[in-house]
Amino acid sequence: MKNLVGACMFGQSGGPTSVINASAAGVFIEALEQKNITAVYGAAHGIKGILEEDFYDIGQEDKEELLLLKNTPSSSLGSVRYKLKDASVDETDYKRILEVFKKYNVRYFFYNGGNDSMDTCNKISKYLLKSGYECNIIGVPKTIDNDLYGTDHCPGYGSAAKYVATTLMELNLDAKVYDKGQVAVVEIMGRNAGWLTAAAALADYKGLGADLIYLPEVPFSVEKFVADVKAVMDKNNGKCIACVSEGIRDKDGNFIVETLSAAKAKDGFGHTQLGGLAAQLADLVNQKFGVKVRGIEFNLMQRCGAHLASGTDIEEAFTAGRTAVKAACEGETDKMVVFERDMSSGSYKCIYKLMPVELAANTEKKVPLEWINEAGTGLTKEYVEYALPLIQGASNSPLEDGLPKFANLKKVSARK
Amino acid sequence: MKNLVGACMFGQSGGPTSVINASAAGVFIEALEQKNITAVYGAAHGIKGILEEDFYDIGQEDKEELLLLKNTPSSSLGSVRYKLKDASVDETDYKRILEVFKKYNVRYFFYNGGNDSMDTCNKISKYLLKSGYECNIIGVPKTIDNDLYGTDHCPGYGSAAKYVATTLMELNLDAKVYDKGQVAVVEIMGRNAGWLTAAAALADYKGLGADLIYLPEVPFSVEKFVADVKAVMDKNNGKCIACVSEGIRDKDGNFIVETLSAAKAKDGFGHTQLGGLAAQLADLVNQKFGVKVRGIEFNLMQRCGAHLASGTDIEEAFTAGRTAVKAACEGETDKMVVFERDMSSGSYKCIYKLMPVELAANTEKKVPLEWINEAGTGLTKEYVEYALPLIQGASNSPLEDGLPKFANLKKVSARK
Repeated sequence: MKNLVGACMFGQSGGPTSVINASAAGVFIEALEQKNITAVYGAAHGIKGILEEDFYDIGQEDKEELLLLKNTPSSSLGSVRYKLKDASVDETDYKRILEVFKKYNVRYFFYNGGNDSMDTCNKISKYLLKSGYECNIIGVPKTIDNDLYGTDHCPGYGSAAKYVATTLMELNLDAKVYDKGQVAVVEIMGRNAGWLTAAAALADYKGLGADLIYLPEVPFSVEKFVADVKAVMDKNNGKCIACVSEGIRDKDGNFIVETLSAAKAKDGFGHTQLGGLAAQLADLVNQKFGVKVRGIEFNLMQRCGAHLASGTDIEEAFTAGRTAVKAACEGETDKMVVFERDMSSGSYKCIYKLMPVELAANTEKKVPLEWINEAGTGLTKEYVEYALPLIQGASNSPLEDGLPKFANLKKVSARK
Repeated sequence: MKNLVGACMFGQSGGPTSVINASAAGVFIEALEQKNITAVYGAAHGIKGILEEDFYDIGQEDKEELLLLKNTPSSSLGSVRYKLKDASVDETDYKRILEVFKKYNVRYFFYNGGNDSMDTCNKISKYLLKSGYECNIIGVPKTIDNDLYGTDHCPGYGSAAKYVATTLMELNLDAKVYDKGQVAVVEIMGRNAGWLTAAAALADYKGLGADLIYLPEVPFSVEKFVADVKAVMDKNNGKCIACVSEGIRDKDGNFIVETLSAAKAKDGFGHTQLGGLAAQLADLVNQKFGVKVRGIEFNLMQRCGAHLASGTDIEEAFTAGRTAVKAACEGETDKMVVFERDMSSGSYKCIYKLMPVELAANTEKKVPLEWINEAGTGLTKEYVEYALPLIQGASNSPLEDGLPKFANLKKVSARK
């Protein structure tokens, strides 16, 4: 719908990344410049902030502070894990959203997140279309998991991959420093798709990576793992570094961390909360071979290490936000911003396009099996060629007192 | 002993740091320039390389590569945890060292390490003095633990502290992102001295730190911890970040990690190997309050995160190496390089001095109790003033393919 005049609402959802705020900066700065956008709102904790009429008036923020969002990790507005029911089952939330959008004359809605968030975005979009309420809606992708369908890659992935590769190079030097055998098992995020764990191959490319890399795309056998580790130890002075995706499963689809433990905590989306896998596999190796072991988890650091963000990722995330607003103002709706890789000039270039948002909702793009080596313990050079352009450039975060200077928004409530 | 002409031997020992190789660069570059030094050797795995006649001819290395050592974490020559017996008990190792030193005409010996390594350095120094073998020996300090006696601070500490403070700021933003309660327990290295855990206070200083900080200097009560966490949760929307030193102990001196588990693995020096503390304390909080928890370990990353090294620390570590060589060439021996803080100009300046090495051997400098707040859960501004100058400046590591470019030494064997 062209020439819609009204307010814009932006929300952040799902697990944060190092650059999700860069997309927020892109949305805010572009929206504040658009003449048809009469007010810019940032929802506290995503969809929950809309339901509870809890959002901030971004027009009150200084532009300088909004630009600092480009280097500020995590979700500055607060995130949420809240799954909307199908409107056919329960319309309550949708009616409330419509009510709030009408009250504040929200005519532009941008939602920044991964699969689950694009599902939310799609459901709201479809409901408002059906209701005849004019509101242009564009999803802005983000996920360190890099598993969104229809886009070459996702904002957030390059920075997390750079964290994984850089940190592994450093760990490689540290974990092999003694004259005795030592096995390190490194656990990297990724429930169903192994993209982030695959980034360990970038460290291998520099000669300082993991000896073994296990992705959830390939069924994991504990017996094979133990044999693989032993083979590396035998040829490498008792030393081995193995990277495992948190979501590795056996051939029957059972999470290895669960077959190894009874930990069953659940997070907000009903996913099983994983953890402790590295420690358990390391213990197993210790029991088998009596070698010194270390279980290492990159934990939250891999998704919030903004000091180590990829410059390319920051700029792409920022531009994705701007692109969403521009497209909506040009009349686009019910879409998600996607990235296309253009190598026609011989070097990497990112092209910004749009795709129907429903195509991204609840689908998962996995690492192509042909990019995983035959032994299931490493990646091919095709993966390295794919990922290298995404980790280029430094974050150049401003420092103050030798520490990062992060955005500190005023967060003036916009409640009427 | 002045005007000694002969070879120089350098070794690295104990746990690596982000800047121990910067000291190596300082020693090597200075030694290669000294006319009385006829050859420069780097021992593989510290004292073990000397005993086994396994060392490298540093004269074969390119200066460019040696300078890259300034940004390369861990111990490039390999480290070791090997405790020399007292010469009065068993002279075997000492005789062997003397034999090797004579064979290669080693007249300068530099050993880079912490308390245990300074003990090694002191023992060798005393033995050679007694034997009448002329060899000038200087210890070069390093330790992320910052616990060496007689020096304002230790090379390696500033970088590890910068890692802790920066990462905590990022974690603070991530761990508080949801609209629900969440408790994160962060485990930081430090068996007996809480210096590194104290660095969490630098993040607090920027308003993005831990709510609670527990050092081994203060007896730890699990009951008080649980109550402290509850009090923070109550006033902070169910959220709390607590930092604990791996070495926290109860009032009877028992390690909390041991009272909470039966893990009893031992490392090379006979210290109990600690770990899993964060996960155990987090579990405890989960059991008590049913809140979502995360146990986070900074693990090896805190001591090898060279990409986040302090520029000040790199330069001081490098200069400590140079200072050791210069001093030895001027006739000094049986000493360790120490840092003195000079604030006379109103701003921080590091002065390089020497101290008898035996004073540093096996002593530990702890965080002054008057720098810990009354509740035993935080640091005073005196600590922040002490630590801030040490984390200034960026590492400016060179990048290649978007990843760190580390030194890659030829390591040509010097064995005759």
